Amino acid sequence: MNALQHLPPPSPLEIARELAAGFAETAAERDARGGTPKAERDAIRQSGLLSLIIPEQYGGLGQDWQATLDVVREFARVDSSIAHVFAFQHLMLATVRLFSRPEQWQPWFQLTARSRWFWGNALNPLDTRTTVKRFDGWREFSGKKSFCSGALDSQMLIASGLDEETGKLLIAAIPTARSGISLADDWDNIGQRQTDSGSAIFERVRVEENELLLDPGPLSTPFACLRPLIAQLIFTHIYLGIAEGSFAEARAYTLKEARPWFKSPASHIGEDPYVLAHYGEFWVGLEGVRALVQRATALLDEAWNQGPDLGEAQRGELALAIATAKVAATRTGLDLCSRLFEVTGARSTHAALRLDRHWRNLRTQTLHDPVDYKVRELGEWALNQTLPKPTFYS
Amino acid sequence: MNALQHLPPPSPLEIARELAAGFAETAAERDARGGTPKAERDAIRQSGLLSLIIPEQYGGLGQDWQATLDVVREFARVDSSIAHVFAFQHLMLATVRLFSRPEQWQPWFQLTARSRWFWGNALNPLDTRTTVKRFDGWREFSGKKSFCSGALDSQMLIASGLDEETGKLLIAAIPTARSGISLADDWDNIGQRQTDSGSAIFERVRVEENELLLDPGPLSTPFACLRPLIAQLIFTHIYLGIAEGSFAEARAYTLKEARPWFKSPASHIGEDPYVLAHYGEFWVGLEGVRALVQRATALLDEAWNQGPDLGEAQRGELALAIATAKVAATRTGLDLCSRLFEVTGARSTHAALRLDRHWRNLRTQTLHDPVDYKVRELGEWALNQTLPKPTFYS
Amino acid sequence: MNALQHLPPPSPLEIARELAAGFAETAAERDARGGTPKAERDAIRQSGLLSLIIPEQYGGLGQDWQATLDVVREFARVDSSIAHVFAFQHLMLATVRLFSRPEQWQPWFQLTARSRWFWGNALNPLDTRTTVKRFDGWREFSGKKSFCSGALDSQMLIASGLDEETGKLLIAAIPTARSGISLADDWDNIGQRQTDSGSAIFERVRVEENELLLDPGPLSTPFACLRPLIAQLIFTHIYLGIAEGSFAEARAYTLKEARPWFKSPASHIGEDPYVLAHYGEFWVGLEGVRALVQRATALLDEAWNQGPDLGEAQRGELALAIATAKVAATRTGLDLCSRLFEVTGARSTHAALRLDRHWRNLRTQTLHDPVDYKVRELGEWALNQTLPKPTFYS
Amino acid sequence: MNALQHLPPPSPLEIARELAAGFAETAAERDARGGTPKAERDAIRQSGLLSLIIPEQYGGLGQDWQATLDVVREFARVDSSIAHVFAFQHLMLATVRLFSRPEQWQPWFQLTARSRWFWGNALNPLDTRTTVKRFDGWREFSGKKSFCSGALDSQMLIASGLDEETGKLLIAAIPTARSGISLADDWDNIGQRQTDSGSAIFERVRVEENELLLDPGPLSTPFACLRPLIAQLIFTHIYLGIAEGSFAEARAYTLKEARPWFKSPASHIGEDPYVLAHYGEFWVGLEGVRALVQRATALLDEAWNQGPDLGEAQRGELALAIATAKVAATRTGLDLCSRLFEVTGARSTHAALRLDRHWRNLRTQTLHDPVDYKVRELGEWALNQTLPKPTFYS
Repeated sequence: MNALQHLPPPSPLEIARELAAGFAETAAERDARGGTPKAERDAIRQSGLLSLIIPEQYGGLGQDWQATLDVVREFARVDSSIAHVFAFQHLMLATVRLFSRPEQWQPWFQLTARSRWFWGNALNPLDTRTTVKRFDGWREFSGKKSFCSGALDSQMLIASGLDEETGKLLIAAIPTARSGISLADDWDNIGQRQTDSGSAIFERVRVEENELLLDPGPLSTPFACLRPLIAQLIFTHIYLGIAEGSFAEARAYTLKEARPWFKSPASHIGEDPYVLAHYGEFWVGLEGVRALVQRATALLDEAWNQGPDLGEAQRGELALAIATAKVAATRTGLDLCSRLFEVTGARSTHAALRLDRHWRNLRTQTLHDPVDYKVRELGEWALNQTLPKPTFYS
Repeated sequence: MNALQHLPPPSPLEIARELAAGFAETAAERDARGGTPKAERDAIRQSGLLSLIIPEQYGGLGQDWQATLDVVREFARVDSSIAHVFAFQHLMLATVRLFSRPEQWQPWFQLTARSRWFWGNALNPLDTRTTVKRFDGWREFSGKKSFCSGALDSQMLIASGLDEETGKLLIAAIPTARSGISLADDWDNIGQRQTDSGSAIFERVRVEENELLLDPGPLSTPFACLRPLIAQLIFTHIYLGIAEGSFAEARAYTLKEARPWFKSPASHIGEDPYVLAHYGEFWVGLEGVRALVQRATALLDEAWNQGPDLGEAQRGELALAIATAKVAATRTGLDLCSRLFEVTGARSTHAALRLDRHWRNLRTQTLHDPVDYKVRELGEWALNQTLPKPTFYS
Repeated sequence: MNALQHLPPPSPLEIARELAAGFAETAAERDARGGTPKAERDAIRQSGLLSLIIPEQYGGLGQDWQATLDVVREFARVDSSIAHVFAFQHLMLATVRLFSRPEQWQPWFQLTARSRWFWGNALNPLDTRTTVKRFDGWREFSGKKSFCSGALDSQMLIASGLDEETGKLLIAAIPTARSGISLADDWDNIGQRQTDSGSAIFERVRVEENELLLDPGPLSTPFACLRPLIAQLIFTHIYLGIAEGSFAEARAYTLKEARPWFKSPASHIGEDPYVLAHYGEFWVGLEGVRALVQRATALLDEAWNQGPDLGEAQRGELALAIATAKVAATRTGLDLCSRLFEVTGARSTHAALRLDRHWRNLRTQTLHDPVDYKVRELGEWALNQTLPKPTFYS
Repeated sequence: MNALQHLPPPSPLEIARELAAGFAETAAERDARGGTPKAERDAIRQSGLLSLIIPEQYGGLGQDWQATLDVVREFARVDSSIAHVFAFQHLMLATVRLFSRPEQWQPWFQLTARSRWFWGNALNPLDTRTTVKRFDGWREFSGKKSFCSGALDSQMLIASGLDEETGKLLIAAIPTARSGISLADDWDNIGQRQTDSGSAIFERVRVEENELLLDPGPLSTPFACLRPLIAQLIFTHIYLGIAEGSFAEARAYTLKEARPWFKSPASHIGEDPYVLAHYGEFWVGLEGVRALVQRATALLDEAWNQGPDLGEAQRGELALAIATAKVAATRTGLDLCSRLFEVTGARSTHAALRLDRHWRNLRTQTLHDPVDYKVRELGEWALNQTLPKPTFYS
């Protein structure tokens, strides 16, 4: 028996840091390549982190949202595509937890922890091309879905369709391998290039009744309405992570590679008055977002812990906190990712560095839903004291 | 014995709110008038709040900085001049606590609590016109000082001068009534009009050795170096309070008085898309500052509670947190105080409302020390990991 | 016969500069006082500049809009209240020129030039409290009007009311001394304090048919629709003038009074990196606005010279040019008037300087109509190629 | 003889528009590919536009800078790489015109017009790795140069090196095919990907005396000092062209593809209040830059036409006008190229559109020299009335 055996196991964040260090080495290259980050997804599977938010009683790591989103942010600092699909794993788990009966989500949680399932997304409620036909004891999903992040290389899918008769949104959790499901490798966008956010086709896919998330169902109670808030907060953590990663990369480049402009009064770049001013502004921006994100995340854990008792007002205040953090993260991040080149200089546009990927990733991800309408939502509160009405985006 | 006797005494914040409600009624009128807010100062004296930060063992209310600065902010929402002199009371108390020996500050604390002394400021270290001559057992202060906030109508003064021989900064706590001190009623500025931040003249003022704050002396230890940080955080709370007060006043005016522009799609001002956008932006700004201010204040209490054991690193991190909050509060506040008119409209420029006073107050107060150099300080940290070097402004 | 007799008479701009130099000396003091700038108005009367835009054949100075608005801007640099009422003189003259028959406006032009009439404004079309009763051969105006700039101490008024029966807007040119008109000395606002933009009361005021501006009438043709554009361009020149005046005053103060911050690497304020950065930004802003204003003014003269042949498209493009310049002048000006204190410092808040009056004046004047809806108008063009629909504000 | 023979020949701008229409079709694809746009370069050669600025007496098109830069901007709207190398052609011609004797530049002009020479750049004065050895009647250039835009596929090169003995900058015009010159195909950057701005290696390259630009030599007179100003104005036109092209592409996409957000009050995207606000802001920004660019370009033609009589003051004012336009174009363009996605939406991030290339191109190009120091230069003027000191960047 040696000393090493007495070391405590690494914390989830420590595991994430180690993984992130590896992802960082290939992030620029994989950004160029796009496609599925298979090796990285498998490394995450191996790490056990896919069950971060699953309570220990179901075999998971039993972490709260703070810890879970810390890991998301850790990944986002070096690779926001991986952060995205990793975070969506937890969003999918939250979806079944919030929208289905314990007899449904408990086994899914157990199997996910045990079998290291990766969950993918095919829920996009604004894409109404998938319809659901009702049969006796089962349903049939047919149609297309866009923006299916993480669906490729997943074991389970959260899919949605509109009931052919009632027009109601139905959501199901189904094995990705189910007959009739085909996932296109058609995500080729300017950013978030390894999120596999392409399209899915459902050809008469059979879905059993107990795979439908009907009780309590989508957005049915304040507690169920946490789902879109978790999605929004995930985005916010990713935005902040991208900004933090950009900052770190810019800083390293400035210190190692940049030289003061020939008209600068400074002999070292670290003393240039304007370079310092930019870094000071970056810092103020990042710290403001960090404080808002931290507060919103703490409030999510509080709301989550309330369970079905969660009231509308508390849910509404959480929605405001998350929207505020998201707007701030969007603005601060975009400014930083574009302006950073002013402190790294002309040579930092070398393609091998792919220093533009931070802006591309953030620009892509921040378009998920329009920031203008998020600001308006906050204005409704600030002026009229009206809490955001729950939707899949609020 | 009646039911009232069982009521708990009002908290300092409740007392402050009641006072603030009264100040609000006359704030616009007193802004026009300028001069010393004698009645309001006396109301504060009566309230007992002048000893907020004084430990209970010396007869004070024993509050921490969080509670003390909450009261400052409460006042700043309606009257930032009063907030300023009230906050400076506590800065002066902190000054003697941090720069002098217990045998000095303990009696001053006791007398302040017992006799409801108001302390005024005559310390401005950048004004070098006051010199100190050394005699046997005492010193003589001669010269002028500018920006002596709250000196008029005070019982005690913190005054500074430069030692004639060594050039060293000497600071003393002396009765305002001391022979040779004259305070000019010459503060007439565009904002902070009732702070009495005018000039003081010292004509051969005798200062005893035990009135000098020599041990540990100004900025001598990390703990003593909390003094400028408290000053900076006070400003930050005032800036945020002004912004919050402006927001509240704008909101009330919009809802009660403003009408949608004739080209607006809205039938009520509360539905105008651009009015909502402005309020949403205001909210994001205010929430960001609130989160930063709250964090910085909690860190100050932690550092304060360390006492003389406080280390340089912890003091430095506090300095960064405060500087960050201050820059954010400056920017956010100035934007809000100027832009608010776009949601209140042309009629809100009526002089009787004096809705411009928020901008004038904030504009004046935010010039205490240049925000550009605060940003630079943060840049030094963000880029070079250099902690701010303690001065009377950092 | 001496050499002086051979000197050419001073140009309008030279006359304006001399007047402006005098106004500058008392501008701060008169800003404090408010009320009617009687002496200054009389000096303008004496100067002959009231007939700048009146063609020589009617006894005027026969200047174009470029020259006229150059004088407005010259005044605005030192006193935007005087610039406002002086500019409104010309707006009123344009109003009769554009809305009435030659038999009406020609004598008014002649009398204005000969008798040095000052025209005031009581037209505010959004204030619907004045109604017009029709009698045989005359009308009767009764009710109130707000924002009647320059009505006090005027000889002629442009007044509007709604036809009691048809609801149609009727506009008349009437002597200010007409029985039944009373002008309140009730303008007391945070800015533009000597514009006398208070209220007028019409008590059964008799208006003759030939005093009504019916043919072609308000906003009846593209040429008549120049009237609101002239108003908007006047505002723009005033905004720019205020910004230029602020800049000049800030610059003089920085150079004469300001000292580098003790942490500045500069030994003179003129070398401080951040002070230079602010001035550089001010310059970029001002130059951009100047270029847009110059272009818009040249286009106005072109359109004005078209006379009744002016087409909708040309009028529309002028409207866009003016709206663009106005938005830019609003944004740039407000930023400059608030930020200038960062290059003048804490001492420049001394009330005697009243350096805040630039922000107060601009803030007040820029609320005439909401900048948000001006931006939207430009967006309608930029996106949809829709020209602004003429109203009294477009 | 038919009617077509009577048609006037197309103007340079018409030729450019036709070329641009062709470039536009492949711009996105070529952005992906990088490398030399050989076909497009040859099309330009064929068009005759390479001799735009060459006076007719030397066989050129005899256009002024206004016309020449209009063509640059036309290209930049669809392909800023081609705009760059095309503009540099003219910068190189200006370089020989300004730095050499008529006996030198006249034949070069003639040969360029006749043989459709493309000129490339190897001048970068901040890269000091190339040295020049003096021999009897000739010199020898040895070393490296970075950022050699347009050197590949060129017939002539402007190269610089430092005199081994004196350290003085020497500039020469030499055939690209000269023995000892090798050009690396090593430009692979995030933007301006087809500018071939890679490196050149000079291995003991023989340069004849009459290939050196010694009389009057670099930056020797105010007229010679137009060279860096032409470079700066070229950049400015490219920035504006990129912004205009982005705007046009965003607009087309919004109108054709974008849908209002589900919470929008609008039924068509063209009525969404926030989309209109963004377009309005874009318009204000673009118009401001256009006005500044137009003015600066007119001033350049005036200065150019002065020839050697050009004075320092006039050259200095031109420098200010160009610097102002450049700063405004930088800020406005970067904002537009990043923000445009907020009016095109999530689907517009599809890689095939490569709508990010505008931001990447502008971001890369705007780093040529730091905008902070350009602003400072303007601040030196605005505050201290100091004209920019001529350098290769001012």
